[in-house]
Amino acid sequence: MGEINFKNILKEIKPKENENSEIQILSSKLIKTINEIAKEDNVNAEAVMVGSVAKCTWLSGKADIDIFIKFPLSLDEKDLKRHGLSLGHKCIEKMGGSYEERYASHPYVTGFINSYKIDFVPCYAIKDCNQLKSAVDRTILHTEYVKKNLKSEQIDEVLLLKKFMESIGIYGSEFKVGGFSGYLCELLVIYYVTFLKVLKAAGEEWKPDHKIDLEGYKTAEHFNEPFVVVDPVDKNRNVAAPLTLQRMSEFVVASRNFCKNPQEAYFSPKIPKVKLNHIKNEFRRRETKTLLIIFTPPEIPADAIYPQLKKTENSLKGIIEREGFRVFDCDYWTNEDDTAIILLELDIWKLPNIKKHFGPYVWSKIHQKRFLEKYKDKAWIHGDRWVVEVERKYRDVESLLNDILTEDRMDYLKFGKHIKAEILKNRQIVAIDDFLDSDKCSEDVLRFFYKYLNKSMCLWR
Amino acid sequence: MGEINFKNILKEIKPKENENSEIQILSSKLIKTINEIAKEDNVNAEAVMVGSVAKCTWLSGKADIDIFIKFPLSLDEKDLKRHGLSLGHKCIEKMGGSYEERYASHPYVTGFINSYKIDFVPCYAIKDCNQLKSAVDRTILHTEYVKKNLKSEQIDEVLLLKKFMESIGIYGSEFKVGGFSGYLCELLVIYYVTFLKVLKAAGEEWKPDHKIDLEGYKTAEHFNEPFVVVDPVDKNRNVAAPLTLQRMSEFVVASRNFCKNPQEAYFSPKIPKVKLNHIKNEFRRRETKTLLIIFTPPEIPADAIYPQLKKTENSLKGIIEREGFRVFDCDYWTNEDDTAIILLELDIWKLPNIKKHFGPYVWSKIHQKRFLEKYKDKAWIHGDRWVVEVERKYRDVESLLNDILTEDRMDYLKFGKHIKAEILKNRQIVAIDDFLDSDKCSEDVLRFFYKYLNKSMCLWR
Repeated sequence: MGEINFKNILKEIKPKENENSEIQILSSKLIKTINEIAKEDNVNAEAVMVGSVAKCTWLSGKADIDIFIKFPLSLDEKDLKRHGLSLGHKCIEKMGGSYEERYASHPYVTGFINSYKIDFVPCYAIKDCNQLKSAVDRTILHTEYVKKNLKSEQIDEVLLLKKFMESIGIYGSEFKVGGFSGYLCELLVIYYVTFLKVLKAAGEEWKPDHKIDLEGYKTAEHFNEPFVVVDPVDKNRNVAAPLTLQRMSEFVVASRNFCKNPQEAYFSPKIPKVKLNHIKNEFRRRETKTLLIIFTPPEIPADAIYPQLKKTENSLKGIIEREGFRVFDCDYWTNEDDTAIILLELDIWKLPNIKKHFGPYVWSKIHQKRFLEKYKDKAWIHGDRWVVEVERKYRDVESLLNDILTEDRMDYLKFGKHIKAEILKNRQIVAIDDFLDSDKCSEDVLRFFYKYLNKSMCLWR
Repeated sequence: MGEINFKNILKEIKPKENENSEIQILSSKLIKTINEIAKEDNVNAEAVMVGSVAKCTWLSGKADIDIFIKFPLSLDEKDLKRHGLSLGHKCIEKMGGSYEERYASHPYVTGFINSYKIDFVPCYAIKDCNQLKSAVDRTILHTEYVKKNLKSEQIDEVLLLKKFMESIGIYGSEFKVGGFSGYLCELLVIYYVTFLKVLKAAGEEWKPDHKIDLEGYKTAEHFNEPFVVVDPVDKNRNVAAPLTLQRMSEFVVASRNFCKNPQEAYFSPKIPKVKLNHIKNEFRRRETKTLLIIFTPPEIPADAIYPQLKKTENSLKGIIEREGFRVFDCDYWTNEDDTAIILLELDIWKLPNIKKHFGPYVWSKIHQKRFLEKYKDKAWIHGDRWVVEVERKYRDVESLLNDILTEDRMDYLKFGKHIKAEILKNRQIVAIDDFLDSDKCSEDVLRFFYKYLNKSMCLWR
């Protein structure tokens, strides 16, 4: 271990002096401007920097400037929104930028100034989480906690950890990734001290149900996610709640791989050479049947699309398997713009004419009666249950999909109404071979196929 | 109800006076002969009639004459056997018949005299079941109990019940049937009084775990078979132990059918017209794949062949499904002479090239190491478990069967060594179509196929 030159890596990922000062100067100016406008408008508000910029833990080139505008707890929510958005607008106008309003659990203003994206978020000035009025209020406490507890020499450790996670594809707590948030990375470094110690602990000690409780709240038992890190500013919150078992496992394995054979390549994304012919041949070699359901994603925030895609995929898988077919594997992808794909790879996609339909137990005279009225002499007894052989409604998966993805039958499927509407409008069901030969097969989609065929490829270098 | 003329039926199934007297005369003569020989030989023994002949509950033309030769409890087992068999032999010789020795849990002599088959079974003269030395000793107590408790007018009820059960295919406690023994029929009539009341109770009240305890022993809870009838002469025995859930269910359903629409036809076997072409077309219509494994059954008693066939069938089904194929249904058949058949009907019999192989959980560093040494970069993580895609060893069921039914691979299969040896010697795996076109397809086998395709057909008339 330690044969690796972390300084080289930090040279790449740590903001250089000019990037740093540019952002700090811009941020200070924004804060000052807002506070001045508030004073002019006679609004009781105070702007503060939060997030990675405030904590100096952003990766070079990836600064998201987050400015929170704090209001007194006594202000009602309507006025908080009104004043908050107004202060954001005025500030951006004064600085000569453009803006749009957005909504999380909470409305906020996103401004674009000097090629930086800046979020202005109104919030309450809470002292601790007992005063919490909305989820965003906690952010200020997070920033304060990290600034207080992360030693300046540990900032490099955080940068290494974030970059490592990004390169292996597990950085980010949004649904699309289901990985580690920036705040979680910072807490891990605070707890384990260094980047290498985090990896060592993950590779050797972590198991599902691993718990970290920095402030000794003893509330870790309340959570049942695979990994629990009790929020130091809110004992009732698990910072690692969005982390999936999948990403946790991947981090554990990548950590072991890195510790065994450290390489600088772990800090760069793995970009494979994707060749259409390789993908084609690989799908053919498998002898499975791969179908793509292609449609336009609904116009909703990206973080809302992914859970709906996941739900739709699961629901389709369930229906396909209930009909007796078998899904070998499945996945979904979207460019978050005009294309969404659900990929279904089947190892059983054709079935015989007949299937068994299990009816009531023979002991119930009433249920038996109804069953036999329908099936009479076709029925037989298996053990103590009625069975009947019925014609299979769907003898191949394509006819099943074509049938259930129509207006009348959609109630079978469980998915968000947004996706439902889109699938009804314009879905196509295409065999992988046909799709690969078509002009719709972009580089991005090919990369999705490549990743599908080479899962976990990012865990090694 | 009651529109049916039971007298007509009894005319058919009840032994006529000449049959009755012929058997009674023969039986008395046999008893007398044995007792005389015993006296001459100075052996302390006494012959008694047991079974349906002693109880007058045999179906016309189906008298099995069972003569038990009782010895004092003080006699040791070797002498009991020696004296018992010798008395049997001598008696048969004296009566001018032929004989062979047989073995149940206990050796006995079967004689053939005047076209009757007569069993001579040595046993101990026990007073109650606490003195039980072997399973056969109980038979005398059973006979005594029924003679004492079954009223003479109930004999007809027993005959109706036995014939009804025979016609719907559930009479007999041997493994091949797994149905109701004659003694159990008698106890049911003693308990419920009449044939119709037995059927009414079965159709309306019986459920798995139904218990009957004629003598109020309160031991019914000790048994966990689906139907419990505590033996009135042995509180530690369930008379209905051999009854399968299947046959119990069939009796319940046939009882309901009869009570709803009584017909004389319920007292005759249902003999369908079996046509080769119908069978052929039916198997084709199903679009499944039906394979027959054909071999010579081992030369062991019939009651030992059937459990072994069942075990072999189950084991084959298990292996086939573990490899990812799917058995739609299966069955077995033997003529108990030169042919045994295991029928396997598949609805999935071909699979793609690849399959998933699940490895260890990622948390175990040691198990992971071994797994990755073998599969390295082909492996990926699913949730928290290693998975690898491997080539499927068997892509169709025939190649799987051909491989596992060879010397080297037979350890996979669980079945009696007798069947194993036979399958190794001469098994054939034949598709149903080919078999139906061959000269091996006898009437008996066709009937087996017919019953397979028309399960529970005997429950209705």
